[in-house]
Amino acid sequence: MPSFTVFKGSKEGKPVKATTTKPDELTGDKCLIKITASGLCYTDIHYKTADMALGHEGVGVVEAVGPDVKQLKKGDRIGWGYQHDNCGLCKLCLTGQEVYCPERAMYGYADLDQGSFGSHAVWREAFLFKLPDELTDAEAAPLMCGGATVWSALTSYNTKPTETVGILGVGGLGHLAIQFCAKFGCRVVVLSGSDRKKDEAMRLGAHEFVATKGKDKLEVSQKLDRLLVTTSAQPDWAQLTAIMSPGSTIHPLSVSGGNFTFPYGFLIEQGITVQGSVVAPRQIHKDMLTFAARNGIKPVIQEFPMTEEGIQDAIDKLEKGEVHFRAVLKPQL
Amino acid sequence: MPSFTVFKGSKEGKPVKATTTKPDELTGDKCLIKITASGLCYTDIHYKTADMALGHEGVGVVEAVGPDVKQLKKGDRIGWGYQHDNCGLCKLCLTGQEVYCPERAMYGYADLDQGSFGSHAVWREAFLFKLPDELTDAEAAPLMCGGATVWSALTSYNTKPTETVGILGVGGLGHLAIQFCAKFGCRVVVLSGSDRKKDEAMRLGAHEFVATKGKDKLEVSQKLDRLLVTTSAQPDWAQLTAIMSPGSTIHPLSVSGGNFTFPYGFLIEQGITVQGSVVAPRQIHKDMLTFAARNGIKPVIQEFPMTEEGIQDAIDKLEKGEVHFRAVLKPQL
Repeated sequence: MPSFTVFKGSKEGKPVKATTTKPDELTGDKCLIKITASGLCYTDIHYKTADMALGHEGVGVVEAVGPDVKQLKKGDRIGWGYQHDNCGLCKLCLTGQEVYCPERAMYGYADLDQGSFGSHAVWREAFLFKLPDELTDAEAAPLMCGGATVWSALTSYNTKPTETVGILGVGGLGHLAIQFCAKFGCRVVVLSGSDRKKDEAMRLGAHEFVATKGKDKLEVSQKLDRLLVTTSAQPDWAQLTAIMSPGSTIHPLSVSGGNFTFPYGFLIEQGITVQGSVVAPRQIHKDMLTFAARNGIKPVIQEFPMTEEGIQDAIDKLEKGEVHFRAVLKPQL
Repeated sequence: MPSFTVFKGSKEGKPVKATTTKPDELTGDKCLIKITASGLCYTDIHYKTADMALGHEGVGVVEAVGPDVKQLKKGDRIGWGYQHDNCGLCKLCLTGQEVYCPERAMYGYADLDQGSFGSHAVWREAFLFKLPDELTDAEAAPLMCGGATVWSALTSYNTKPTETVGILGVGGLGHLAIQFCAKFGCRVVVLSGSDRKKDEAMRLGAHEFVATKGKDKLEVSQKLDRLLVTTSAQPDWAQLTAIMSPGSTIHPLSVSGGNFTFPYGFLIEQGITVQGSVVAPRQIHKDMLTFAARNGIKPVIQEFPMTEEGIQDAIDKLEKGEVHFRAVLKPQL
């Protein structure tokens, strides 16, 4: 089984079906995965014009294992995300922060010949996550990047159950962050452009909802101890200062270029923490799956066929902000 | 003793001698202090044109105590800093973060009729710090704001002895940060414009010294886990990314307006923490005095007379970057 289907980006920004060929034999701890579902993340859109296989919220079934695989076996349901490998030897790797390893193999930078949009992929066992029975394949997929990103921001930086947490943006990341924080027992304040997503945000566990569009000054009934910014573009940071508590933490999670520009005096005088982070180290990622299974946390998904047309349709809807709340691609049987 | 001398800012930016009159009787936990030394901090220069008494690195002797004073007594040597009062009831106050109390009484905003440039002042016992015998009055003064600012950044945010800590700027704050970090056992990397302060930085405990002026790309032998920026103006933040480790922390300590502008991608992808902070909560401040006394940490000071001319002279030298390393004003006997 050395050849399989992938969907790549193209100059025109359209997903294109292609074939990837891997060596006949699986070496080391590599596993051959048959893909059963993939989330669509805004980062995929950033790469839609690149000559690379797309997709990094993968779910599938193990079809074959290499000689050094220790725990996984044929038939196991697994997921994978943004990171595929690390050096395993540096300080970051040795302290459970392998997502910052200087030799990290990340989506968009390494393994450009395969992704989660396709029929199969070959990955190291060490970077695959066994799925809990409580989550279907389609439900597990959006946790692999979107869920992991908000989960790691929350749990790697010590969110306490007594906090008031703000979630800016109700999309693939935000709607999962609402659920995680609600299950931590936090007070959850959701900020979104309009009231359109209010009912659903409240149903997912929010305690307060603020529509931001057209407002000069934001107001919340209680200032935030923590704010997760999950919008696809950076917000007006200065406007957000009005709702932040002294000593609070801001997690910018948008994938964006340019500069982070924030009022200097407020940063210093209010003792604000600005905490950068990407996805989740593996143990943190595993904790998320266990927590989601135990607490009934599931993404709200919209399914599309894993075809050139289906991917294109999902991308179009995501760009228009019409996905509710995470697009999941499923192979056609 | 209801009237005493203060030195105020003035429209022309020159220190002007004036008189402040307080009620005849000390109320509550107020103490009358006879000032014996005051540090000069760059923040004083920001207020030199304001109609307010200047100075916030005060040291003196208790001359009289109010009816509710519990521990201090006449003759005690004490110091005080940027903060003079708090509400004592809010979450920040109740969790040892009173420097962020919304009702904090801070230099420049409250008690504008008295400062540490003058003959006397009246402050609450709760915001006075008893001095250890190991420090002279003049040596203790620069710890009250400059020392407290770097100490709190280091110890409130968990600096570990295994870290490589960078100190940008060798002035009133920087030269104390070098000593604190060296005594923690950290590897200390000092960054300064030219080589002029190299020998002294190494003598104070630095392990590596980098002259930054004219360099396109900064280089250090080992990237920094933490960086304290102690210059009076904000640096070129983008240039500093070249020497920061993944997962490292940046402490911007300059007093500045405008925006904090930092490369967004680096912040996120490298998991950087940007940590704002001001001076030190009281227990942290007390810990600093104990630590400095035990470890022989002393500021390098340059003395000036506490007169209109002496203050002006010290301000002029500080503005030209000629103070070595902290100016201390002493009343003329």
